Amino acid sequence: MARYKMTIEYDGEPFAGWQLQANAPTVQGALEDAFFTLTGTRPTIHAAGRTDAGVHAKGQVAHADLDRLWDTRVLRNAINAHLRPHPISVLAVETVTDTFHARFKAVRRHYLYRIANRPAPLALERGKAWWQPVALDHQAMHDAAQALVGKHDFTTFRAAECQAQSPVKTLDRIDVTRQGDMIGITVEARSFLHHQVRSMVGSLKLVGDGKWPIGEMQAALLARDRTRCGPVAPPTGLYLMRVDY
Amino acid sequence: MARYKMTIEYDGEPFAGWQLQANAPTVQGALEDAFFTLTGTRPTIHAAGRTDAGVHAKGQVAHADLDRLWDTRVLRNAINAHLRPHPISVLAVETVTDTFHARFKAVRRHYLYRIANRPAPLALERGKAWWQPVALDHQAMHDAAQALVGKHDFTTFRAAECQAQSPVKTLDRIDVTRQGDMIGITVEARSFLHHQVRSMVGSLKLVGDGKWPIGEMQAALLARDRTRCGPVAPPTGLYLMRVDY
Repeated sequence: MARYKMTIEYDGEPFAGWQLQANAPTVQGALEDAFFTLTGTRPTIHAAGRTDAGVHAKGQVAHADLDRLWDTRVLRNAINAHLRPHPISVLAVETVTDTFHARFKAVRRHYLYRIANRPAPLALERGKAWWQPVALDHQAMHDAAQALVGKHDFTTFRAAECQAQSPVKTLDRIDVTRQGDMIGITVEARSFLHHQVRSMVGSLKLVGDGKWPIGEMQAALLARDRTRCGPVAPPTGLYLMRVDY
Repeated sequence: MARYKMTIEYDGEPFAGWQLQANAPTVQGALEDAFFTLTGTRPTIHAAGRTDAGVHAKGQVAHADLDRLWDTRVLRNAINAHLRPHPISVLAVETVTDTFHARFKAVRRHYLYRIANRPAPLALERGKAWWQPVALDHQAMHDAAQALVGKHDFTTFRAAECQAQSPVKTLDRIDVTRQGDMIGITVEARSFLHHQVRSMVGSLKLVGDGKWPIGEMQAALLARDRTRCGPVAPPTGLYLMRVDY
């Protein structure tokens, strides 16, 4: 028995999210199917982040226990061959000790939210960013976002169906930058509440288009009231970029 | 009657190329359909580059003559609305004089060819780059490519079906650079022969993986012999980036 850590990229669009479901295509399901085809047994695959339907990953991390010892490059290539035609790619496989756990041992998760801010709709990056035709003030969004950094009760930015025991989380970083038409919102924390990033982004968008003054972000946070959250941003712009251990 | 210049982005994957065909989806056909729906007449749309099936554009330029005077932003938005669900987006519309011609007045065309050089297949950028799992020496590719710069008989890098009167073209620039896993080949010239960029890239790939010594690129060029060309690179990595007038 050996434990393998995988770094995984996927296009979230065709999937009902990471987590296995009986009657919908999921990333976990496609991966477990590929392992079953390769090894004849179906290991449970544990991921650092159970991304929602439509959310992408450039650096999801997961682990699985396999009976057989594999050369890590051979395993990566074999799983990738069996994953076709799903838009999922195992970037790297490493052997780890059985104290490693993709979900419970993660100390920091890095997300990126991309907003395409231009008058024309997306052709080449359709489904890979949130299209916003009205000019957004990314500097105001950045300034407003800084009120979220630190340890707070994030009830305002938490989905009703969130199962976390506490709404208190520590946000280590949130930066809003622009490169040409593309606004990138970089977010880092040990862990997040359900829909937290998309809730924060949806509210920041209201700052960007002038519907909210900069101070409204802090006021919404302090209110600890879900009804004060802006409309949740769509999954299409969200990427799980990296997980630290 | 007024002439309008358009800058256009598209995902080439679902199209049989730019140029109108009776029984296949084309970018020109989709655009002319959108104009017909909007205006009731079908203008002929002339493009700077009649890109092949599967080739993408971030800055294709085209022009059309319309009977009515349009506010350029209103025209852009209306055409984009009628283009749905095609992955084609008109980025900008400008009014130009009738001496402008998208194809014949272009003085420089800028192409980018993207090679994803990593062991794992593409998930997020599938169809948007050429996947090459074997490590390519981009510096050797760059050095070899410099033999192509200048005025040459490009018969070696010309498709059999090319209709240009002369195989002599002047290549202004070809640079091979790498950012992480992505190799970018930037190519500029007033005009190109049919399949010239993909033929040059396919040959450069042989330099990159060591099958050709650096000097073989110049030898192949000087041979003026199509059989000396490497396998033509696929359209999936090619982008028409910009056209200068």
